[in-house]
Amino acid sequence: MTDVLSRRDLDFLLYEWLEVPALAARKRFAEHSKDTFDAVLDLSADLAHKHFAPHNKKADTNEPTMRSDGTVEMIPEVKAALDAYAASGLIAGQFDESVGGMQLPTTVARAAMAWFQAANAGTAAYPFLTAANANLIAAYGTDQQIDDYVRPMLEGRWFGTMCLSEPQAGSSLADITTRAVRQDDGSYRVTGTKMWISGGDHELTENIVHLVLAKTPDGGPGVKGISLFIVPKVLPGADSGLGERNDVTLTGLNHKMGNRGTTNTMLAFGDGTHTPGGKSGAVGFLVGEEHRGLSYMFHMMNEARIGVGFLAIALGYVGYRKSLEYAKVRTQGRPLGAKDPAAPPVPIIDHPDVRRLLLAQKSYVEGALALGLYCSRLVDEQDTAVDAATTDEATLLLDVLTPIAKSWPSQWCLEANSLAIQVHGGYGYTRDYDVEQHYRDNRLNPIHEGTHGIQGLDLLGRKVTMQGGAGLRVLGSKITATVVRARVLGGEAKRHADALDTVWNRILDVTEALWASGDATTALANSSVYLEAFGHTVIAWMWLEQLIATYGKNGDFYDGKRMAARYFFAHELPKVGPQLDLLASGDRTAAEMNPQWF
Amino acid sequence: MTDVLSRRDLDFLLYEWLEVPALAARKRFAEHSKDTFDAVLDLSADLAHKHFAPHNKKADTNEPTMRSDGTVEMIPEVKAALDAYAASGLIAGQFDESVGGMQLPTTVARAAMAWFQAANAGTAAYPFLTAANANLIAAYGTDQQIDDYVRPMLEGRWFGTMCLSEPQAGSSLADITTRAVRQDDGSYRVTGTKMWISGGDHELTENIVHLVLAKTPDGGPGVKGISLFIVPKVLPGADSGLGERNDVTLTGLNHKMGNRGTTNTMLAFGDGTHTPGGKSGAVGFLVGEEHRGLSYMFHMMNEARIGVGFLAIALGYVGYRKSLEYAKVRTQGRPLGAKDPAAPPVPIIDHPDVRRLLLAQKSYVEGALALGLYCSRLVDEQDTAVDAATTDEATLLLDVLTPIAKSWPSQWCLEANSLAIQVHGGYGYTRDYDVEQHYRDNRLNPIHEGTHGIQGLDLLGRKVTMQGGAGLRVLGSKITATVVRARVLGGEAKRHADALDTVWNRILDVTEALWASGDATTALANSSVYLEAFGHTVIAWMWLEQLIATYGKNGDFYDGKRMAARYFFAHELPKVGPQLDLLASGDRTAAEMNPQWF
Repeated sequence: MTDVLSRRDLDFLLYEWLEVPALAARKRFAEHSKDTFDAVLDLSADLAHKHFAPHNKKADTNEPTMRSDGTVEMIPEVKAALDAYAASGLIAGQFDESVGGMQLPTTVARAAMAWFQAANAGTAAYPFLTAANANLIAAYGTDQQIDDYVRPMLEGRWFGTMCLSEPQAGSSLADITTRAVRQDDGSYRVTGTKMWISGGDHELTENIVHLVLAKTPDGGPGVKGISLFIVPKVLPGADSGLGERNDVTLTGLNHKMGNRGTTNTMLAFGDGTHTPGGKSGAVGFLVGEEHRGLSYMFHMMNEARIGVGFLAIALGYVGYRKSLEYAKVRTQGRPLGAKDPAAPPVPIIDHPDVRRLLLAQKSYVEGALALGLYCSRLVDEQDTAVDAATTDEATLLLDVLTPIAKSWPSQWCLEANSLAIQVHGGYGYTRDYDVEQHYRDNRLNPIHEGTHGIQGLDLLGRKVTMQGGAGLRVLGSKITATVVRARVLGGEAKRHADALDTVWNRILDVTEALWASGDATTALANSSVYLEAFGHTVIAWMWLEQLIATYGKNGDFYDGKRMAARYFFAHELPKVGPQLDLLASGDRTAAEMNPQWF
Repeated sequence: MTDVLSRRDLDFLLYEWLEVPALAARKRFAEHSKDTFDAVLDLSADLAHKHFAPHNKKADTNEPTMRSDGTVEMIPEVKAALDAYAASGLIAGQFDESVGGMQLPTTVARAAMAWFQAANAGTAAYPFLTAANANLIAAYGTDQQIDDYVRPMLEGRWFGTMCLSEPQAGSSLADITTRAVRQDDGSYRVTGTKMWISGGDHELTENIVHLVLAKTPDGGPGVKGISLFIVPKVLPGADSGLGERNDVTLTGLNHKMGNRGTTNTMLAFGDGTHTPGGKSGAVGFLVGEEHRGLSYMFHMMNEARIGVGFLAIALGYVGYRKSLEYAKVRTQGRPLGAKDPAAPPVPIIDHPDVRRLLLAQKSYVEGALALGLYCSRLVDEQDTAVDAATTDEATLLLDVLTPIAKSWPSQWCLEANSLAIQVHGGYGYTRDYDVEQHYRDNRLNPIHEGTHGIQGLDLLGRKVTMQGGAGLRVLGSKITATVVRARVLGGEAKRHADALDTVWNRILDVTEALWASGDATTALANSSVYLEAFGHTVIAWMWLEQLIATYGKNGDFYDGKRMAARYFFAHELPKVGPQLDLLASGDRTAAEMNPQWF
């Protein structure tokens, strides 16, 4: 079986480029070293290949179903894999030792998780969501809430979810109608319907901890009235045991094109199916303060967005590796200009156009992985930098890069999956091979955790303008530093540096020009185009960084990195030119299109 | 239910632009008029909506299966729809009256077929393949073969297939190993395995006529040794009845990501399962002359490629229409800058980014439909023009445009389907809506009838260089004529004309520069990029043609066309610039990538 990721590439990015072992000098990571990082990556690869990859197709073919009693049936391999994962302690990888965690750097934890996402996106989603949920409660919950909910989740005994969307309110959280009414004992009763809840119900664990956005009666309209509640499927009982069944009911499973292994649910809160404490209404517990729910959730959502980026990267990566293997063994045709029709056919990797399909994939998935790990490294910086200036800088950079780290892999690693199908030809379109599933699975990523369009509005409407453009300035200083280093190296690095520098300066000009009017509608008319141009530029930067890291090093691996960098600068970065021209032109075609004219 | 195509758009393209009614002045179409064309389109739309669209999802969910006795089980709606289609006589739409046809112009027949392709790609494939098969026998078969095979196919009693690929020979037909040995009675015995045969077996009709590429013992290596054979599933018997079962056996159904309604089969020819005439070996009948099989097949394949383009267009179109409907009724969020969070949410079509997603789809599917119909109109010209010069010109244009008519819709109408999902948000990713199926169905089209890469090699390696560049010259003369007309109109038309003229001249320069070396490997290193740049330019030409056709006309429909033209020239055509820069640079990144470096 093909490894689902390249450990060689991870080693390059983590050790030869991001210098992750140096983090061990920080107090939080003092127990760690390159050896412990290696051990976590080895363990993850091993578990992912042994327990996650083997049932990836089976879970797709046999999606979860709802039994007549309202419970969820799924293939047993999912629970077996997750039990093995829980036993490894990896769910708690990044958490404090005080709650049973390993205090791993986020960079290492993300790389470790990527093995599972690449092996089996559907099964990996459960612990991924659980860690995100636990992280939020650990950040904003009380000590009691941490004991009650975070610990069992980190032990893998309970799983967690995020309940934001409702049938009528997907991207528009201001319109949620789920209500939470405070009770005399300080708890709340929650009523409403939540939609698109991944992992929202299953029999994998004895309990499920829902984090639910809801409005209190005095919350007022819009997002400001939203609070955040812990609503467990089963209420905690005495002695860390389980108590009463809470009034949370699975009302339907969504049937998706891909990502079928993860249950995706519609949940009714407080519809009276259950009557905890003798009355209907789901019992919920406020996290932090009332009316601050959305700000807490955004803390998690920024992480979740980078996590979605990783899911897209992992799926792109595994498809790339499988199509590479296929191209080496599948024979078909002869080189251009071959004279002897009776000569044996050659492996298709010998055809330049197939190598183009592979190089494009390589440039997308390795470029995206570099960005994902770079952002993870920024999270570590934000969490553990010794001076406030470095922390602030990391925070600013993360703010600007998060929409890119989410959207770019979701677009281009999906394209990589399409190219992986293309390498396989007709076979790739069949379910006998894996690549069609990766493509279907990956199509989710431009939709959830904020659609592509939402990321564009976030980037251009908020992130590049915040604090007077501080985020853009700090990103510019980083890119410029890379450009300066590359120019010193001369040759190809210098040429690429010049190209990147030119594009970056155009982005700055265009950003200013777009906002010159002060009219948001005009400025944001093509925010998705801005997002895509910005994203390609950031990935070009990532490739220049990687190219610099190969200097003075010989061997196939480094030659491959250099060729992928060349590919990205020759075939990809120039695509940004017409996008910036369009933005600079003040195009308002879509804005001016009258709905009646369609 | 949303109409799967826009009759208004078809009327515009056929009547206001291509002046199809004028064809009735030609002898072949003398029985026709706009009224008969309208009647055929009305009938097609009606049958497609009544009999094809309703089981589209059901056929996807319940794909054909092979019973233990080797027969194929599928949902009964497929046969019911095809019986209704056969009863309409539409299979014979384009055929001569002498064989029971209607002598419809190809342009009208393609437009008629598009309704069925949009309503249900899987079910529509059976008559589509049957007509292509019958057309080939009608062109190259004997009178007896026409009586024996074409007539029952045009009556819809038998269906037909094309058997080219083998498990080891997909794109590389030189490597087929199916053998045909001549018998004393002039028939042949065929042995071998064919793969990816659409409609290769089923119980929809009492017989299936396979057209099979095979090599005779003296054929020699390579494609020159290939001959073409009619190999019916059941041999014709006395009095137009059925005779013995031929030695053709279904050995497996391929299970695909999409397009599931069409059986896609592996067939064994002559494996001894059946023994016609007392011995094993599939009985086949030579079409035309020995060793000319591939040239006959290419006649069909050029038509089939345009047909694949139509399939991609139809799927893109129906997805566009459904997402447009959805965007009008789904409410979510408020306009940018809206002050009142309690105001009701607006239909998502009010958001500029959603309109961008719709405009992009409109520009792709309507631009592609224009090209598909333009090429069909060229087929009519080729078949019925009164002077040889016009016929030759149409043939040259068709040669050059066919790889575009196949590849461009396969790429961009698939992208349209992805945007249709995006408009639907999370709902679009579920199987409760139709758009995810259209996307899966459409992903086939860049693969079959020559992959995207093969189309690029065909265009740059053959079509633009043939006859000293005659095809390129005649296309240039057509584009220039459009440019001249548009410039006269001034304003937006003139600006678009100038842009198109500039790009076209760059294509000419780049084409010359690529071939200046005389080295095919260098010239063709980025033939896929050339294909894509050429394709976007051709579609820009189609939009300029459409824009001209709207001049002096008022109303929502024409305003929509004008905005879509503006969109294509602002957002799409400029993408060609960096592609041509890349080609002009002589980039050889993919060609120089060593397989060891991946």
